[in-house]
Amino acid sequence: MVRIIEVKQSVFADNDAQADRLRTDLKAQKTFLLNLMSSPGSGKTTTLLRTVGSLKERLRIGVMEADIDSAVDAETMAKTGVRTIQLHTGGMCHLDAGMTEHGLKELQAQDLDLAILENVGNLVCPAEFDTGAVKNAMILSVPEGHDKPLKYPLIFTVCDALIINKIDVLPYFDFDMEKVKEYALMRNPKLKIFPISAKTGEGVDVWTQWLYEEVTEWNR
Amino acid sequence: MVRIIEVKQSVFADNDAQADRLRTDLKAQKTFLLNLMSSPGSGKTTTLLRTVGSLKERLRIGVMEADIDSAVDAETMAKTGVRTIQLHTGGMCHLDAGMTEHGLKELQAQDLDLAILENVGNLVCPAEFDTGAVKNAMILSVPEGHDKPLKYPLIFTVCDALIINKIDVLPYFDFDMEKVKEYALMRNPKLKIFPISAKTGEGVDVWTQWLYEEVTEWNR
Repeated sequence: MVRIIEVKQSVFADNDAQADRLRTDLKAQKTFLLNLMSSPGSGKTTTLLRTVGSLKERLRIGVMEADIDSAVDAETMAKTGVRTIQLHTGGMCHLDAGMTEHGLKELQAQDLDLAILENVGNLVCPAEFDTGAVKNAMILSVPEGHDKPLKYPLIFTVCDALIINKIDVLPYFDFDMEKVKEYALMRNPKLKIFPISAKTGEGVDVWTQWLYEEVTEWNR
Repeated sequence: MVRIIEVKQSVFADNDAQADRLRTDLKAQKTFLLNLMSSPGSGKTTTLLRTVGSLKERLRIGVMEADIDSAVDAETMAKTGVRTIQLHTGGMCHLDAGMTEHGLKELQAQDLDLAILENVGNLVCPAEFDTGAVKNAMILSVPEGHDKPLKYPLIFTVCDALIINKIDVLPYFDFDMEKVKEYALMRNPKLKIFPISAKTGEGVDVWTQWLYEEVTEWNR
């Protein structure tokens, strides 16, 4: 059974200041925090399973699964053997820095190289709150369509990495890979883009290599 | 060019009371309001285009497209010839009854049989706010997975109709149609379920017939 933590919105008015403090603490303790965001159903959990599978021999990893009120993903994740906790937001559509800090304590992140926060499935609210993460990544899946950077601009702006998942079903959708890259880079010219299939494993090594390098750079 | 309306969160503290008042007004003026919710990329706009195409000879229809800040969907919708406006929520992740009422006034909904609100793409926040709609419908698309009623319970509870879209790609996904029905009905035993492909048109007539009957019943 995965442990379930109820996290509550921070009493601190200034989320940005709290997020900066949290990042300073993470730097001091040599823990890298990745905040992973996406819509429901884009394949966050499957992508994380691949990511953890690829890196768990090289890094000490822990995962926080945030969810409105289920523990479906955390139970799947715990089977990989990495330290996993479930964060319940009690209906909240995002996590702030205070909730994340609470989660990291429960996860005992101080002895981890990489802590991953799987944020609530939502392209809107999570993008508005700095969690204190070192890097933000998002997943957009092929069936969602290549117009999403036009419709949900903020999340593309705040992310460092964009994983384009489910490329195995590209033949069955009107998804224009060049267009999505163009739109996403228009929002954020520095965005790293990783087309993958979490199902088949295609492209996953390029994504995990980038993440591994970011983690080792931060924890040096 | 589609008209763009900036809507702001209501000053009324009691959204439920305001939603009830709005429904009473809609009943008096014989206008049916449908609130359509889903994740980004589930095919809301394509489904609406099919719905409008099927019903526009029989009903006077107007559409309100809610979006964080683009007008992509509204411009597509306006080409069908039905009255369309764009609602901008200014970053808000949902619409409340006050914002909806403002939109209906701008749409001049009093001479419409059916007003459709395409809510912000999000499975969490829109479910928490009664917009004053007569019926709530949601779209879940096949690529999102059949476990969504377990992970986002509230939206399945508040909806009257569940459209399962993109059934044309069923062969390429591990999507269990019986399981999703079982999970969804567990949340809401009265839920009407409509498997469709907005792309090919399959199943759309069963959905629009249900909607047509609900509209004529309400406006009688």
